[in-house]
Amino acid sequence: MKPNNRELGTCYYPEHWPEDLWQTDAEQMINLGLKWVRIGEFSWSRLEPKENEFSFEWFDRAIKTLGEAGLSIILGTPTATPPTWVIKKFPDMLALDADGRPRGFGSRRHYCFSHEGYRNQCSKIVRKLAERYGSNPYIQAWQTDNEYGCHDTTISYSSSALNSFQSWLAKIYGNDVNKLNEEWGNVFWSMEYQGYDEIPLPNLTVTEPNPAHALAFRRFTSSQVTTFNRIQTQIIREYSSAPIIHNFMGRITDFDHFDVGEDLDIASWDSYPLGFLLDRAGATETEKNIFLRQGDPDFQAFHHDLYRAVCGGRWWVMEQQPGPVNWAPYNPEPLPGMVRLWTWEAFAHGAETVSYFRWRQVPFAQEQMHSGLLQPNSAPAPGYFEARQVKEELDASPEISNGLSDVAIYFDYDADAAWNVQPTGEGLTYFQLIMDHYRTFRRLGLNVDFVHKNTEDFSGYKLISVVGAIHISSDLISRIATSMATLVFGPRTGARVGNMQIPKNLPPQINLVKSRILRVETLPSNVSLEIDPVGRAGRYIEIIKLDNNASPYLKLKNGQVIATKEESGVIYLASMIDQKGLTAFYQKLFKEIKLDFLLMPDGVRRRSTEIEEFWFNYNNKVVQTKIGEMKPADIIRLPRV
Amino acid sequence: MKPNNRELGTCYYPEHWPEDLWQTDAEQMINLGLKWVRIGEFSWSRLEPKENEFSFEWFDRAIKTLGEAGLSIILGTPTATPPTWVIKKFPDMLALDADGRPRGFGSRRHYCFSHEGYRNQCSKIVRKLAERYGSNPYIQAWQTDNEYGCHDTTISYSSSALNSFQSWLAKIYGNDVNKLNEEWGNVFWSMEYQGYDEIPLPNLTVTEPNPAHALAFRRFTSSQVTTFNRIQTQIIREYSSAPIIHNFMGRITDFDHFDVGEDLDIASWDSYPLGFLLDRAGATETEKNIFLRQGDPDFQAFHHDLYRAVCGGRWWVMEQQPGPVNWAPYNPEPLPGMVRLWTWEAFAHGAETVSYFRWRQVPFAQEQMHSGLLQPNSAPAPGYFEARQVKEELDASPEISNGLSDVAIYFDYDADAAWNVQPTGEGLTYFQLIMDHYRTFRRLGLNVDFVHKNTEDFSGYKLISVVGAIHISSDLISRIATSMATLVFGPRTGARVGNMQIPKNLPPQINLVKSRILRVETLPSNVSLEIDPVGRAGRYIEIIKLDNNASPYLKLKNGQVIATKEESGVIYLASMIDQKGLTAFYQKLFKEIKLDFLLMPDGVRRRSTEIEEFWFNYNNKVVQTKIGEMKPADIIRLPRV
Amino acid sequence: MKPNNRELGTCYYPEHWPEDLWQTDAEQMINLGLKWVRIGEFSWSRLEPKENEFSFEWFDRAIKTLGEAGLSIILGTPTATPPTWVIKKFPDMLALDADGRPRGFGSRRHYCFSHEGYRNQCSKIVRKLAERYGSNPYIQAWQTDNEYGCHDTTISYSSSALNSFQSWLAKIYGNDVNKLNEEWGNVFWSMEYQGYDEIPLPNLTVTEPNPAHALAFRRFTSSQVTTFNRIQTQIIREYSSAPIIHNFMGRITDFDHFDVGEDLDIASWDSYPLGFLLDRAGATETEKNIFLRQGDPDFQAFHHDLYRAVCGGRWWVMEQQPGPVNWAPYNPEPLPGMVRLWTWEAFAHGAETVSYFRWRQVPFAQEQMHSGLLQPNSAPAPGYFEARQVKEELDASPEISNGLSDVAIYFDYDADAAWNVQPTGEGLTYFQLIMDHYRTFRRLGLNVDFVHKNTEDFSGYKLISVVGAIHISSDLISRIATSMATLVFGPRTGARVGNMQIPKNLPPQINLVKSRILRVETLPSNVSLEIDPVGRAGRYIEIIKLDNNASPYLKLKNGQVIATKEESGVIYLASMIDQKGLTAFYQKLFKEIKLDFLLMPDGVRRRSTEIEEFWFNYNNKVVQTKIGEMKPADIIRLPRV
Repeated sequence: MKPNNRELGTCYYPEHWPEDLWQTDAEQMINLGLKWVRIGEFSWSRLEPKENEFSFEWFDRAIKTLGEAGLSIILGTPTATPPTWVIKKFPDMLALDADGRPRGFGSRRHYCFSHEGYRNQCSKIVRKLAERYGSNPYIQAWQTDNEYGCHDTTISYSSSALNSFQSWLAKIYGNDVNKLNEEWGNVFWSMEYQGYDEIPLPNLTVTEPNPAHALAFRRFTSSQVTTFNRIQTQIIREYSSAPIIHNFMGRITDFDHFDVGEDLDIASWDSYPLGFLLDRAGATETEKNIFLRQGDPDFQAFHHDLYRAVCGGRWWVMEQQPGPVNWAPYNPEPLPGMVRLWTWEAFAHGAETVSYFRWRQVPFAQEQMHSGLLQPNSAPAPGYFEARQVKEELDASPEISNGLSDVAIYFDYDADAAWNVQPTGEGLTYFQLIMDHYRTFRRLGLNVDFVHKNTEDFSGYKLISVVGAIHISSDLISRIATSMATLVFGPRTGARVGNMQIPKNLPPQINLVKSRILRVETLPSNVSLEIDPVGRAGRYIEIIKLDNNASPYLKLKNGQVIATKEESGVIYLASMIDQKGLTAFYQKLFKEIKLDFLLMPDGVRRRSTEIEEFWFNYNNKVVQTKIGEMKPADIIRLPRV
Repeated sequence: MKPNNRELGTCYYPEHWPEDLWQTDAEQMINLGLKWVRIGEFSWSRLEPKENEFSFEWFDRAIKTLGEAGLSIILGTPTATPPTWVIKKFPDMLALDADGRPRGFGSRRHYCFSHEGYRNQCSKIVRKLAERYGSNPYIQAWQTDNEYGCHDTTISYSSSALNSFQSWLAKIYGNDVNKLNEEWGNVFWSMEYQGYDEIPLPNLTVTEPNPAHALAFRRFTSSQVTTFNRIQTQIIREYSSAPIIHNFMGRITDFDHFDVGEDLDIASWDSYPLGFLLDRAGATETEKNIFLRQGDPDFQAFHHDLYRAVCGGRWWVMEQQPGPVNWAPYNPEPLPGMVRLWTWEAFAHGAETVSYFRWRQVPFAQEQMHSGLLQPNSAPAPGYFEARQVKEELDASPEISNGLSDVAIYFDYDADAAWNVQPTGEGLTYFQLIMDHYRTFRRLGLNVDFVHKNTEDFSGYKLISVVGAIHISSDLISRIATSMATLVFGPRTGARVGNMQIPKNLPPQINLVKSRILRVETLPSNVSLEIDPVGRAGRYIEIIKLDNNASPYLKLKNGQVIATKEESGVIYLASMIDQKGLTAFYQKLFKEIKLDFLLMPDGVRRRSTEIEEFWFNYNNKVVQTKIGEMKPADIIRLPRV
Repeated sequence: MKPNNRELGTCYYPEHWPEDLWQTDAEQMINLGLKWVRIGEFSWSRLEPKENEFSFEWFDRAIKTLGEAGLSIILGTPTATPPTWVIKKFPDMLALDADGRPRGFGSRRHYCFSHEGYRNQCSKIVRKLAERYGSNPYIQAWQTDNEYGCHDTTISYSSSALNSFQSWLAKIYGNDVNKLNEEWGNVFWSMEYQGYDEIPLPNLTVTEPNPAHALAFRRFTSSQVTTFNRIQTQIIREYSSAPIIHNFMGRITDFDHFDVGEDLDIASWDSYPLGFLLDRAGATETEKNIFLRQGDPDFQAFHHDLYRAVCGGRWWVMEQQPGPVNWAPYNPEPLPGMVRLWTWEAFAHGAETVSYFRWRQVPFAQEQMHSGLLQPNSAPAPGYFEARQVKEELDASPEISNGLSDVAIYFDYDADAAWNVQPTGEGLTYFQLIMDHYRTFRRLGLNVDFVHKNTEDFSGYKLISVVGAIHISSDLISRIATSMATLVFGPRTGARVGNMQIPKNLPPQINLVKSRILRVETLPSNVSLEIDPVGRAGRYIEIIKLDNNASPYLKLKNGQVIATKEESGVIYLASMIDQKGLTAFYQKLFKEIKLDFLLMPDGVRRRSTEIEEFWFNYNNKVVQTKIGEMKPADIIRLPRV
């Protein structure tokens, strides 16, 4: 048995605590079995209290104390919290919201990604940190900024954004703005521009802006985040060979994480299962009640698998919820055992490190009601004991390798943007569509990988689902097709060409699919159509014209074809479908392609590594499974068969 | 049998398509049996790409191609979509919303009706068009602008609006602003003005503004639309004798269509039954489900009858939904047959022409998901075949004359404004009240006419309902009374005098009604009071003091009188009433006045022309009627008895 | 039997009516039995039409007419409605809302409390009035301004507010801004300030501002109201010895009424039971239906008892709803008898005077649909007859003394602000928590007093509840403890020290409570936990660590302790609890401490004076009680046993 290779960590803010606590804290971290500690990411006002007046000595001492105690340090760049003097220097660096209001000083992330002056200011503090600590042996990793996009901060309607957007467009479309006019179809409502300087941001229009305009702005915005991050990684690499990480936030999809990931060594994300359930997992009221203290059974795994894809395999949980948080609509206590379960689930999905946020609950400021491993009075909180249990179990555990997956889902941030720009029906999102398919795979007991535009090797999968990918290049489709996997396309995949135009010969623009989408209907969530034999279709339904050489693969009870089997062998699924229908659809398909699956009990999920199967019970009650009874928050580990 | 006299048309945008398609398109239109084609209304950036640089040659060719193929052209003035150079010339021409935010470039209708500079710019392009095409034989009609008021664009809080409002008030109230102070009751909260330049727009006040102030602003705003339109009609008439049309939009009530209609030859409206059902027909969730693919059974007919009144009889459907649209909360497919049904229903209500929007679905820009008669790849969409069926039926049809109506409803845009300014209970609207009465008449199988302040002859009706008309002049009441029809007044008719003041001797200010309204109560929609013997009263209930010579006509079960029969013979109905109660009320009354009616099955409606009865089945299921079984979307035509 | 000592009044606006009506009106008021009439509070534009041009003659005549008829006059300062010339003089005096929009002229309360220029302008008009009428024998009382805070006007984000806030902070924290940084914990997200001029208002931040920042701003804002009011009371007292009153509005809690009360002689409030039920009483949909025409059975009493505490006992109802109002979401008629019931309930709670708003319904402006004692045509409205009945009953009544209370509730406006700044769960408010306890006491048939930070003598109570008081000083707790009453603390009492920091040794910061709050969870309203034996806990639940010398006092069925009995004898209740649970909790406790109570039928309430018991039936149906059957709106008076 190879020894455990997974590590624990925590987030620590020496600047929040008296210096005489640092040593004790460091020793207690080591005693608990933590290996990593993240520091620095909100400390700009202490590192550079005034412009060009740096104060690194206290930080040196903190690093020394933590490092000498045996901890490896992740150093966070403090660019998510520029101090007042930066804002005074660049009053126009604040992002503007869609209503044109500045998003002011007084919390965090109060900057526009496009502001040149602020970018330079960030370069300066990052270079100072990298110079000073780039070869410090205790600094074993870097984190850039903090949670890009959190609090809806990706998109800014500032004048910096406007100017940069115009330049960005000019670079793409070249000297003749008429190329842009034509591709966007600006003739439609006399929206033609005679110069790039005439193009506004797509907010505050009378009715909806041109979707091509809105999508271009989304793509521009995403590029700004990538550039902003790249400036930091390039500087850090001049001075340090330690891996660079960013901590992404759950369900932030408004910039391209794969693009940002290209500049990182390790992807990480911040996992707050209870907050996410109530705030962004799309749970029904019933699900919110059932999983109130456990979180959605698939939401964390979804992000684990997604971030595993962002940097080609290496990923962490940088912030793990250890108890009640402060920011969700309601903030319940986790069910006992869930902190342990969440941690183990991350490891089972391949996390190298799970780091708890935060070491000690802070008695002041915005997050004073966010629990830590320690209470404000330094006594251990429940999460502390669960972390200790995980550490003991890790020590007794064989190596946890990442498991292979038979199925993969293609994920595309650009598609999310395009759905957002043109939902066609209230509340329809790409994320929800992808989550529907992901959830079905999990209900069928499968490991899932995410693949994407930068994936080099699509081989090894028995099935790849490419749904909702509004814009997808033929080249990419060809590369995916070389995988030899069965391919499932549909609804809305290849629905547009160029910048949001319907293909001349109708969608989908997929050479493997000859059937045509004639038009689309969207339905309210309380209306749906019966599938034969089981389930219901609804929300987004494409009216399909079957190719002569294709055969119907799934029909409504009224006879309407909603999935085809194309001459090329691929399946095209023309509708959003409920869980019952989607599960039946994939069960049928899996049987045909001889892909093993196991229908899991409600709220129970499994994840296989190379040698083990982990079963997780997300229910708040005892469940009977084929491998035995599972208590609430139970984990069962089996040798993989 | 006289031959059919009704025509079909479509909306076409030559600037959206390669010139080599124009000829084919024109021929296919003719083959389909279309007579009319509308062009030009969003093409300003192509007709005048830069100020004073006109480019009419392509337009000449388009007109020639369409005209020579045999089509009659409606030429739309392009003033709903000023190009960028106009906005650069007049940066302050944008409307401001109630929050003071400019409603910017990037879609359409981005102008304030009060901006003098923009008005002049519009005059110029309209004059150019009228000069060039005023005597062109293919131009058989004109359309001014497009859908005044759509996207909530009637009301603007710009500085142009402010200045014009102050001048408008000065013209009405004269030199002494105290006349205004007195009529508005500005003493109430020390709101007295010492000059017109002190009077603000009624937005962004701490709590509600003076209703007199708000209503005056509504009246002013309405007058701005009328003036804006009149400038165009006057110019066109200098050069052309073709009829002038405007295409009004469904349930836009915030300016006076009768006033605008005075300057038009033909009224038209844009009929999108499925979008309207989900967006503005006031349907319940149940009704939305039942009529999801058919539309509200009365909403279209309501507008048909209303626009028949706007220009004294001549009216069109300028844009008819041909399939799914793009802009509603959800966008379902029409039930097969509904495009045909909607078209025939318009003809049965007297439409001269029904024109489908649009000829071909456009693959780019805002309306790329709005279906046309053709798909983007030029293949016919389902609406095409239904249009062809209508054309064949028209060719085999006798003349469709407009039918007479036994009942009429008085409609007053000013009343809608006054209700809006002072709803007194959440969600209470004049439109809903009028629709309640209209729907009841339709459920009782009747033809309905709308009459209004400009109606010259009220004779010929057996009953006229004048409900909700907050301000109505004694002169007008007298004129209506000469009709010899039975009159139904109330609730809220004559409730105010001057500019939103309660009459000194209490409402109603109607000389035929001697009973008095002591006060009003409004109730939540889930509370209502039982009527004896049937139905429920609620929402808006007036407490009435019965005149000595009046008798109770309808009572609540608790004894409260909610309708009176006055000494003059008129009925005063003091409450909003549900459909069950209102149907019983009118059945009783119709029997008394010997007005024939027939209670229709749910979702089935009829409309009589001079020689025929049309029955329409709006249900999505088979219905038994006294004239036989009707399938979904069925139309039955009978000789009129 | 001592004669009745309670009086009636009305609100009158001579400037709204022809001068020849004044005499008749005054006589009719006297005939009805009214003693008081309030005038002047919105008449600035008539008293000073232009700056420094005063016009007092008409006001002299009005006062003379009313006074000579036998009425005592309350003179209201007109500072809630500055005329246009004041706004032209000080364009920046308008309050700004949280979005930065000015709250403009056109209704009332369009001023920022912090604007120095406006304060001076107010001083001037108040001094003019005080000079002229300070010794007028008919002026028997003064009212300052009108309904501070109504229409959400307490808080302003103007530049005046910003400057004053910075100065206010500088005064509190002294020269070194680092004291503020430290107390607020500004290091948290690099929010440290280097000078007071850097501190923004806490609006428009990206995510939530520092709660210390937000709470400081709330405290500052409250102080601005107190100062604004004090300026007026100081001037009036220079010229008059008549009592000074302010009319507070229901459920306005965003400034400290006890602080304002320090400068008043009599507290009063404006009681609109039907509007409040639908608008702000927190009623469920069911309760809204049951009590639609009667009002919440506890909301009025709550405010009666609260305002009795504000000026140490002397209090009035300055505005009593007499019929339907105009401003609520819906505006139903009161059930017959309710105007009488509301009036008597106020007297039973110790009101000296109940004054009806308004004398005559005004036919113009914002409140034209607000009923009065007279209709607009001067005929009596139903409220008139109920007022007359009250007058007759008063004349036949013994003296109505204020009754003593066995129980008291501690009320703290600062706690309301702190909950608002940090609700921790959606919709959680201090007001609701206090109302829960208050309602339980009322359901148990008890008189209730409110006590507060300025209360000098806490003795005489058998039980004092101090719940939700986030910040409470040890000194105050000691003073309360001297009362010898049983004390109930919790949830959230003493939860913070200084300016919104968690106490170092964990909450609660109450020396009588040794058990510790480890952390908090908040739950959605549809999730709750069963209490043993009865009721449910939910919403806000503290996880408690029982002190060794404390014993569990109440537990959940799962064993979790939610109330403790401390060694000191006090009870700490760690959760919000539903009415069933709270009633059982207090019943148990009352039995232990031998405090008599009587469980009242639903919707029936009682109030005891020294010699009588008043029973009020708020139900719209007949109810059986132990003292006999009560009809809707019934009042039964019994000798106190």
